[in-house]
Amino acid sequence: MEMPIADVRVLNRRERLVAGLRAILPGDAVIDDVAETRAYECDALTAYRCPPMAVVLPRSTSEVAAVLRFCHDEGVPVVPRGAGTSLAGGALPTADCVILGVARMTEVLETDLDNRFIRVETGRTNLSVTGAVEEDGFFYAPDPSSQLACAIAGNIAMNSGGAHCLKYGVTTNNLLGATVVLMDGTVITLGGAHLDAPGLDLLGVICGSEGQLGVVTEATLRILPKPEGARPVLMGFDSSEVAGECVGDIIRAGILPVAIEFMDRPCIRACEAFAHAGYPDCEALLIVEVEGSDAEIDAQLEAITAIARRHNPVALRESGSAEESAAIWKGRKSAFGAMGQINDYICLDGTIPIGELPGVLRRIGDLARGYGLEVANVFHAGDGNMHPLILFNANQPGELEKAEDLGADILRLCVEVGGCLSGEHGVGVEKRDLMTDQYAAEDLEAQMRVKDAFDPKWLLNPAKVFPLAVSASRRAA
Amino acid sequence: MEMPIADVRVLNRRERLVAGLRAILPGDAVIDDVAETRAYECDALTAYRCPPMAVVLPRSTSEVAAVLRFCHDEGVPVVPRGAGTSLAGGALPTADCVILGVARMTEVLETDLDNRFIRVETGRTNLSVTGAVEEDGFFYAPDPSSQLACAIAGNIAMNSGGAHCLKYGVTTNNLLGATVVLMDGTVITLGGAHLDAPGLDLLGVICGSEGQLGVVTEATLRILPKPEGARPVLMGFDSSEVAGECVGDIIRAGILPVAIEFMDRPCIRACEAFAHAGYPDCEALLIVEVEGSDAEIDAQLEAITAIARRHNPVALRESGSAEESAAIWKGRKSAFGAMGQINDYICLDGTIPIGELPGVLRRIGDLARGYGLEVANVFHAGDGNMHPLILFNANQPGELEKAEDLGADILRLCVEVGGCLSGEHGVGVEKRDLMTDQYAAEDLEAQMRVKDAFDPKWLLNPAKVFPLAVSASRRAA
Repeated sequence: MEMPIADVRVLNRRERLVAGLRAILPGDAVIDDVAETRAYECDALTAYRCPPMAVVLPRSTSEVAAVLRFCHDEGVPVVPRGAGTSLAGGALPTADCVILGVARMTEVLETDLDNRFIRVETGRTNLSVTGAVEEDGFFYAPDPSSQLACAIAGNIAMNSGGAHCLKYGVTTNNLLGATVVLMDGTVITLGGAHLDAPGLDLLGVICGSEGQLGVVTEATLRILPKPEGARPVLMGFDSSEVAGECVGDIIRAGILPVAIEFMDRPCIRACEAFAHAGYPDCEALLIVEVEGSDAEIDAQLEAITAIARRHNPVALRESGSAEESAAIWKGRKSAFGAMGQINDYICLDGTIPIGELPGVLRRIGDLARGYGLEVANVFHAGDGNMHPLILFNANQPGELEKAEDLGADILRLCVEVGGCLSGEHGVGVEKRDLMTDQYAAEDLEAQMRVKDAFDPKWLLNPAKVFPLAVSASRRAA
Repeated sequence: MEMPIADVRVLNRRERLVAGLRAILPGDAVIDDVAETRAYECDALTAYRCPPMAVVLPRSTSEVAAVLRFCHDEGVPVVPRGAGTSLAGGALPTADCVILGVARMTEVLETDLDNRFIRVETGRTNLSVTGAVEEDGFFYAPDPSSQLACAIAGNIAMNSGGAHCLKYGVTTNNLLGATVVLMDGTVITLGGAHLDAPGLDLLGVICGSEGQLGVVTEATLRILPKPEGARPVLMGFDSSEVAGECVGDIIRAGILPVAIEFMDRPCIRACEAFAHAGYPDCEALLIVEVEGSDAEIDAQLEAITAIARRHNPVALRESGSAEESAAIWKGRKSAFGAMGQINDYICLDGTIPIGELPGVLRRIGDLARGYGLEVANVFHAGDGNMHPLILFNANQPGELEKAEDLGADILRLCVEVGGCLSGEHGVGVEKRDLMTDQYAAEDLEAQMRVKDAFDPKWLLNPAKVFPLAVSASRRAA
């Protein structure tokens, strides 16, 4: 449906935009009612909110391409959105943007068990990818705590990990191919169900690019045969530093559990109250899980508990049943939610080299005391991906700002010891101005040149990832 | 040392270039003697040769930066070179280029066993990376057959794999960080000894970029604890198709050996004559290796040999000693050399989905018969990375061209079944014009925009990777 030019001219920017979108999408795919768009004003980083001009919910790659082409031609910024579970403001709207949500694109397009891949539309949730193949004995490995809700689109945008990524890698290690729509509406195909790809590996740079380069509408994902069995063991210690040393010793010994998760006392208490998993009440808890046949599990746990005993554990208990294992993981995966029921908090996502764990935990404690704030720790210890939760009272003026300052100090500490700002949540709006702590000007410039190449007008997911001053000047140029 | 402008003006292009290079490098780092530059006129794809204008062998990242900045300002193309073992012409000079070799940059810069990484200059050979940590019980996993000679620089450029990459992944899975010099002399730092990195993952796009984007001078590599033990088993079958089905069944069963290598009769005979490994004389041989404790090895081999027995093997023998294991691997790793002693050949490097293995082997046989040529197969079957060797007589006019045509048909077949042109050798000059068989115009355009972003003048490693007509017009633009 083309609109007569005279009509279009008199409409204001928003009305013109919505009319244009309605001309290329079915009626129910465009949301401009102010009350309805409010559902999209933030993601899981709820401290930041901004309603968009409009929301579109396309149902196919070609509809996504039509929306992007139109917005490109009109100079309208677009913020792609998966399930809106970003903890870093990765899907935060700007006031002049269109939200492009892939929530209605959830189909399984192809399943190939022989070649061990599944091709899905990226609005599909993480857990339902496994759901589509588990009866055949397969699973999709990356398992963010939000896996019941989060979409593959967001997993790819943030290169999401999860508790079991110590063994199986993060999203980039499990993503084989992608269909990507660029800002000008061009559709490109990257990778496929085969090893490597000739030429430049754009799949790698798309993964983790936080919607800066394109909108991923279809993904080919590696699926793995489910292991025969798995068993977690709980190890309690009387200090975080000792738990950190134990993690280092397990890794150094060349043992590769599927997961090594860490919780300190505030988290243990909150999660235990929530999940009744039988967590010991101690300063620091490790959940170490191994996989395989019963004999393999026994052999691995023997080696692991022998290492733990050298660190004088106050508790050491293997899960005795499938129900107990499920409760142990339910507790861990609800940690953020359980903490949220008793506190306001900011969740950080820095990574560090494993060997630095004990020292970094000590220094986080020192920093928190300096600010007069409490920090609870719960994270993927095995691969050095930390999630310190900074607790504060949102109703007390100035507390949020103080908590943010402490968060920035902790992330700078991660960078200082050879780690980085974000393991899996992304930079988003939250850490954009810390990027200059991580990167030299030349490093950032190289990244931004790639952004230039994919999105010369800087219309896609604006005001994120790159320091605000820098990206604003880039966009104006 | 600045040269007076009047003097420079009268020198011809080559003399001016060499004088400029001598002004920024020590005398022995610049080679312009015609006889000496001839050593650099080709790489391991010896069918293509072209002497460069000059060769430089810098000793540091800053010397590399000075060379690139100078060549950038002068508009001189630069061809980076590791050890020159490329099988795809990845280091082939152009007549107007400077070869920039990193062979003198071989230092170990940092070893951190706790955090399991080593930082090296990229001229260091693959095998000597393991050499630097093996006394401590560690190793570097990617193991190209040329590992005694090939440099880490080339491994990164080609995203090299090797026999044991089925379990440990290829270079991109083992590269944690890199120092990269861009064509204009800018030095950037990518990744590091930590999980993930915020912002755009340029490390992923640098790996496998065949020297198109920058020169990698330092690399942070993941090192792994050596397994307790390893044992190969030899499995002989009376047809390639049956061997291919056996590979599929092993992978489908969810067993992950460290390596599954395939050889057909012509390769078996050549390798046996070379290494005396006790290979059975049969149509198709699989070498399957597993790792772990003796008990773990026994358990895995029991499952694997049970699968093999269902395919009526004509031979099935576990290695009985470390010496025998070494001979078995020596035979496999010398396959290209052993074949080269009795035939001229072209070595292909296509990848396919594992499930397609039996059908593709049959169709390769059909194609070869159609051309009246013989094809010998030796490859990493477990991850679908094929290396068909097309045998021909280089002294017979027209045979090379016929062999190249057959090679192109086989690679198109790989793409047709959902695979790709190159698993680990790279595109180089060899497959540049087949890239349009793999990629749609939009896909290639996206890759070339990234090239534009890093090397706007298209001076770095010219005439490679992208179809010649396309890259020539890009360079002129």
